Amino acid sequence: MMKHVLGAQCTRCGKMWEARPDITVCPSCGGLLDIKYDYDSIRKEVSHEVMADRAEQSMWRYMEYLPVQGKGKRPKLRVGWSPFYRADHLAEVLGVKTLYVKDDGVNPTASLKDRASAMAVVKAEEAGAEIVACSSTGNAASSLAGNAAAAGFESYIFVPSRAPKGKVSQLMIFGAHVISVKSSYEDTFRLSEEAIARYGWYNRNAAINPFLMEGKKTVALEIAEQLGWKMTDYVALSVGDGCTIAGVWKGFKDLYETGMIDRLPRLISVQAEGCCPLNRAIAENCPWEPMEENTLADSIAVGVPRNAEKALNAIRESNGIVVNVSDQEILDAAKLLGRTCGVFGEPAGVAGTAGVKKSLELGLIPSDSSVVSIVTGNGLKDTPNAIRAAGEPTEIGPDMEELLAVMDRL
Amino acid sequence: MMKHVLGAQCTRCGKMWEARPDITVCPSCGGLLDIKYDYDSIRKEVSHEVMADRAEQSMWRYMEYLPVQGKGKRPKLRVGWSPFYRADHLAEVLGVKTLYVKDDGVNPTASLKDRASAMAVVKAEEAGAEIVACSSTGNAASSLAGNAAAAGFESYIFVPSRAPKGKVSQLMIFGAHVISVKSSYEDTFRLSEEAIARYGWYNRNAAINPFLMEGKKTVALEIAEQLGWKMTDYVALSVGDGCTIAGVWKGFKDLYETGMIDRLPRLISVQAEGCCPLNRAIAENCPWEPMEENTLADSIAVGVPRNAEKALNAIRESNGIVVNVSDQEILDAAKLLGRTCGVFGEPAGVAGTAGVKKSLELGLIPSDSSVVSIVTGNGLKDTPNAIRAAGEPTEIGPDMEELLAVMDRL
Repeated sequence: MMKHVLGAQCTRCGKMWEARPDITVCPSCGGLLDIKYDYDSIRKEVSHEVMADRAEQSMWRYMEYLPVQGKGKRPKLRVGWSPFYRADHLAEVLGVKTLYVKDDGVNPTASLKDRASAMAVVKAEEAGAEIVACSSTGNAASSLAGNAAAAGFESYIFVPSRAPKGKVSQLMIFGAHVISVKSSYEDTFRLSEEAIARYGWYNRNAAINPFLMEGKKTVALEIAEQLGWKMTDYVALSVGDGCTIAGVWKGFKDLYETGMIDRLPRLISVQAEGCCPLNRAIAENCPWEPMEENTLADSIAVGVPRNAEKALNAIRESNGIVVNVSDQEILDAAKLLGRTCGVFGEPAGVAGTAGVKKSLELGLIPSDSSVVSIVTGNGLKDTPNAIRAAGEPTEIGPDMEELLAVMDRL
Repeated sequence: MMKHVLGAQCTRCGKMWEARPDITVCPSCGGLLDIKYDYDSIRKEVSHEVMADRAEQSMWRYMEYLPVQGKGKRPKLRVGWSPFYRADHLAEVLGVKTLYVKDDGVNPTASLKDRASAMAVVKAEEAGAEIVACSSTGNAASSLAGNAAAAGFESYIFVPSRAPKGKVSQLMIFGAHVISVKSSYEDTFRLSEEAIARYGWYNRNAAINPFLMEGKKTVALEIAEQLGWKMTDYVALSVGDGCTIAGVWKGFKDLYETGMIDRLPRLISVQAEGCCPLNRAIAENCPWEPMEENTLADSIAVGVPRNAEKALNAIRESNGIVVNVSDQEILDAAKLLGRTCGVFGEPAGVAGTAGVKKSLELGLIPSDSSVVSIVTGNGLKDTPNAIRAAGEPTEIGPDMEELLAVMDRL
């Protein structure tokens, strides 16, 4: 509840501001803001027992840790409390002691981004807005469109024209006003910022709006609880703009600071070889620099990460691992997750798993580790790449002889 | 628990058989079997209070009503307890007093069929099988492939080659052996039956395996509980093979017979105008006859329904309504659900909503009704038809002038 929120602090100049629902960057220096909590006051209200008795099974289960007054009055989608699986078969294949898979593709619009968009519509209601807007490689877009439609907001969505058909079809069905920009994500983002400023729409650009990371962090809160509050050694996920890994880290830190977990995991930051500005900055210990957006994993094809500072800070603070994976390794991971876990992730969704595999192969993490791999989006959003990964089925006529011939080959 | 199961009774000759996990049709006359429960013994163990205290939030929440010993030892996907929304905005648009939407597209493989497939893998484990098989228009297939992969079974799947790419990509990613049959669903089904008999695979054809309807009925159990055990006047859903509507009716009857709900809803059976053998039989009060499979809603394009008797019985017993919708009405319903609820259904998934709309327009149900509409599958499974329903986005260059021109048009 807002009573635990101290304010919104600038990550650059350190100034603290009132956490108004429509605040974006620091009014003084333009730096990104971070929502700050009174951990002592949260600590008095939460415990493992309190959580165990809680009926709510959605991201709003963790109200003490969230910067809202309540969920608002408008109708909303049921976001969060996604499935969490112990993946013994996959662990065996990868050669790691303990592995868990968090399937955030099982969300109303089929990605982790629903957590940020659900937060956005609550804050938009608090701010008295009627129109919400964002730019996105695809998932933030479709999740905002869906959550906005449920809550009765109009939405304006900017996507690069490369966005997969699955995500675009969601936008259109949800009735968003969609602007498809024939250029990079960077150009798309810039155009959305200009338009938002001009028209005064509620801004759901995750790097700019400090509340959205607070929505995203709920995936970490759930993971910790689904682990029975016993953290694993590592948590792996794919990284694009940087908001999600920053949110995940914030979630674990919030729990640690309030005594709900007794150790923090190390983050495994997975980027695509063809687009890894953040991982390169860590590996070479230098400032990040823009890169080409050269990967089939559209959600993490972000050459100019909008939340670089928070992401780099999260990786460094957690004593994290960085690992880059090729497109082929991503496609292989999609098949592997599907075959061993029954979990179907989009390319960026399975990149985390590809990163776990590669980290083990390179000896970056020991084989007696415990690891959580977060699947950030559903494979149905990008069917062509799934077919590319796994191939086409065998076609035959409705005839037993033809079937027998196929069976002989299998 | 199996202690409440009396046996498997033939719907044709009435003989009762032991409910062995691999039983299919009546060994005596070949009729379809129905699992029978001792309602008095269930009634002693369940109550609204007992259910309110139950932590499990999946289809296995309702163990007293399920024909299993337990969930088995193999790993499994988290199926069921899907979102249930009060849809006031849509109700207003349709002109009906109260409307709820059950979004069963939010399931691990994104359709209601996960409920049957989850049951299939538990029974396959009980039966000591290693390979499971089915034929399907698509969703039963992808759900069996996913649930089997999670549980470590091999799967053989038969689909008509018309199955949408989204569903096929799921099958391939889950590592199923897929036989794509260049013919009708009817021919596909027949070939699968021959192959299953020849190779001795565990049979997950929903009409033939009496346990699968018991999995499907859990959607009705959830709806009743999510309504606070106060049933609506109507429950609407799309109908293809007939297994789902029969399962839904079984679920409501189980609850009624055990005192958990005090009245039964009337079912609204929605079929496509181009393929409505069951609704035609009801409307014309005659035996059902095969029809062409002439609709874009692939999941309900079933010209020879395999569970006709149970489905017809469910519609008649519930004093149900039958209504047929055109492909255009289905596409319109997809947009309507997306825009008013933020729910994205595949064509067959939104056909139920199209049927509610049409039932109101035709005066088949009064405007002061309360209705539940079940969305049976996720729209991401069939992106091309979503685009067909909702159109393509506006493309522009990364330029404010171009954007302003677009905004003027909107």
